[in-house]
Amino acid sequence: MKPKDYRYNSKRSLIIKEAPAQADEMARKMKDELIMRTEENIERMSELQQRLYASGKEGLIVLLQGMDASGKDSLIRRLFSGLNPQGVRVYSFKAPAGEELRRDYLWRVTKCLPERGMISIFNRSHYEDAVTVGVEKLYEKFNMPERCLGDEIIDKRLEQIRNFEQYLFENGIRVVKLFLNISRDEQKKRLLERLDQPRKNWKFSPDDLASRARWDDYMAAYEYAINRTATGHCPWYVLPADNKWLCRYLASEAILDALKNIDPQYPEPDPSAISLIDEYRKALEEA
Amino acid sequence: MKPKDYRYNSKRSLIIKEAPAQADEMARKMKDELIMRTEENIERMSELQQRLYASGKEGLIVLLQGMDASGKDSLIRRLFSGLNPQGVRVYSFKAPAGEELRRDYLWRVTKCLPERGMISIFNRSHYEDAVTVGVEKLYEKFNMPERCLGDEIIDKRLEQIRNFEQYLFENGIRVVKLFLNISRDEQKKRLLERLDQPRKNWKFSPDDLASRARWDDYMAAYEYAINRTATGHCPWYVLPADNKWLCRYLASEAILDALKNIDPQYPEPDPSAISLIDEYRKALEEA
Repeated sequence: MKPKDYRYNSKRSLIIKEAPAQADEMARKMKDELIMRTEENIERMSELQQRLYASGKEGLIVLLQGMDASGKDSLIRRLFSGLNPQGVRVYSFKAPAGEELRRDYLWRVTKCLPERGMISIFNRSHYEDAVTVGVEKLYEKFNMPERCLGDEIIDKRLEQIRNFEQYLFENGIRVVKLFLNISRDEQKKRLLERLDQPRKNWKFSPDDLASRARWDDYMAAYEYAINRTATGHCPWYVLPADNKWLCRYLASEAILDALKNIDPQYPEPDPSAISLIDEYRKALEEA
Repeated sequence: MKPKDYRYNSKRSLIIKEAPAQADEMARKMKDELIMRTEENIERMSELQQRLYASGKEGLIVLLQGMDASGKDSLIRRLFSGLNPQGVRVYSFKAPAGEELRRDYLWRVTKCLPERGMISIFNRSHYEDAVTVGVEKLYEKFNMPERCLGDEIIDKRLEQIRNFEQYLFENGIRVVKLFLNISRDEQKKRLLERLDQPRKNWKFSPDDLASRARWDDYMAAYEYAINRTATGHCPWYVLPADNKWLCRYLASEAILDALKNIDPQYPEPDPSAISLIDEYRKALEEA
């Protein structure tokens, strides 16, 4: 159950349809252990985030995709509540509207990129502009010139996204991409809970039923997109999401791994500043 | 003196160092004619801009680069003053500062991209992030991880810019790039005017002398950048800028050419709306 086992690799066949039964059974046996390890990882993330903020050399995007009710919101709440919000910002990308529809699709994403030193959490992302746009054929209604439309739009967008993420990497921003891989049965259970429990009613949307009806199309589209955009620098992790403890633990490992790769350091004080420290101290004591 | 003669083509050797003497002499003879044709072009640009705004299908960027005093500001004033400012926005990119320095270099550019239907004028642009950053070796002071620095940064950025502009084209935004190719002698004359005429003093900056001192390095860096980013979809025009009428005329032709290629059309009214027009008229008359 190392996170690298969940790092997407095109040699693994049809991972999205693969039931992670074995791992799931192991996870159940280890529930307490996993929850404890996740807590430890969050503490370590918090330390590294503080260093990242101080160094200001590199930014990090944690990008979450997954079907409705796959646990994106709760994963964000559980993993990032312990971090200093001064260095972490969450952006939720809903269906584009208003000005966003008159813009190129990466415009709203670029506005949410992290400054170096910061972490941006993307709750959904530009992958909707390839996956959902493809499955629902939304491009048929785009007000754009002919050359920008047509069947090849999804392949073009996936190449654009690959270039975009490579650009980010080359300019000091890492992207860690997590696909929360829920099963169709587990989604049904969670959507029913949203209907049954009054406090969860607000999370239910009839749109969820429409995308559920196209489950296989979405799975195929996600697999296609993940396959074309999983690179060494900008990896995808496909995480078993039916089991929330396991999913959160693996996500925490993947994020920690990215932070360890960045290896942020507190800036070294200027040698001239060091020699001044005693003077500053004296001035303060006399003030 | 067709604008396509000034469209950059890598087969023309060292165009930036080439004195456009012949064209210049022709231009002097045709001064009145050129000024009149420029006026006609501005009227035509204004009509097409109105259609562009109405159709909302495509956006246009007119990007200006050139050494100090090459006439970028006056070109913008002369060519775009006649257009409806509701559809045109000018963005001047100064040396990056504050938050911009903690961001990837295309972040501030992306914020200024046109909505479809709009024209953005870029007075300087992301090309400064390749040309000036290279000549002045500014990257040596960037607070970024090792992998993002080093000698190859300029080549990487030019490839990133090429991908970025290709992405824009594929998403309904055209880029027309104008290099205002002033000679070293003419720059001297114009900078002296800024010192001699009190009303022009505010335009003079000592920084202009520093970049003038590295004239040949800048010319080489521009040529390198233009050579690697002039594509069929996102052309560069290298315009003789010592003669302002000629430069403005050629710029107006290049912009008009882009607008004609877009060929914007007023949206056709919905057939159901047409049948309602009489009802609306009746309702208004009775109100």
